[in-house]
Amino acid sequence: MADQSSINATIDAYLAAFTAGDRAGYLDCFAEDASLEDPVGTPRREGRQDIGAFWDEVHVMPDAIELRPLGLRVVTGPDAAFTLQARASVGGQTLVVDVIDVMSFDDAGKITSLRAFFDPAAMRPATD
Amino acid sequence: MADQSSINATIDAYLAAFTAGDRAGYLDCFAEDASLEDPVGTPRREGRQDIGAFWDEVHVMPDAIELRPLGLRVVTGPDAAFTLQARASVGGQTLVVDVIDVMSFDDAGKITSLRAFFDPAAMRPATD
Repeated sequence: MADQSSINATIDAYLAAFTAGDRAGYLDCFAEDASLEDPVGTPRREGRQDIGAFWDEVHVMPDAIELRPLGLRVVTGPDAAFTLQARASVGGQTLVVDVIDVMSFDDAGKITSLRAFFDPAAMRPATD
Repeated sequence: MADQSSINATIDAYLAAFTAGDRAGYLDCFAEDASLEDPVGTPRREGRQDIGAFWDEVHVMPDAIELRPLGLRVVTGPDAAFTLQARASVGGQTLVVDVIDVMSFDDAGKITSLRAFFDPAAMRPATD
């Protein structure tokens, strides 16, 4: 099982790569056969190629998407859950939504599954 | 599928029953064949009888356990995730730990699975 520091490093890399618009760095956080449900309730993506397609779809409209930690992160065994705010810059405006990410990890500390809990209808203009 | 208001009512009832020490009210939030992993990483309990045994084990030491919402709740389809703080009164002291609960629900709005993400080692004396 991956140790907590390895899992924490992957979570940090995931947040940083997403925020930096670093597609390759984002995909490198995932195991080859990882699954992604983002947001929960949408069809599950399977494998890095599918997850890369998800990345491309998500980035059609926004100029950038920051993932900002909201302060609560739990890593327990090969599992983790944490809070964040997704902040999308679209046409000069910033739209935000609060998210709870739930992840599992393999022995190498790569993400094997990611479920992102958020309600797209709850997206709102940033006030900060 | 249960609607969002029904799911939100179950979450509210779950928090209130736990905080009130209401064992029957707590168990009534679950479907008969529900599963419980609390905290994540411990053996899964299956069915209301097993979940009742979990309740009894948890309540051996503390005088009371308050579940206090921490402000983030996402309900999406039959799934939900939310943040809370568990506050256990033990021998005149209050010990707290931050938690992310992840739940699924049946058509009647009862909990079919609950996974509670927290690190027992992160329990600390309350400062508020």
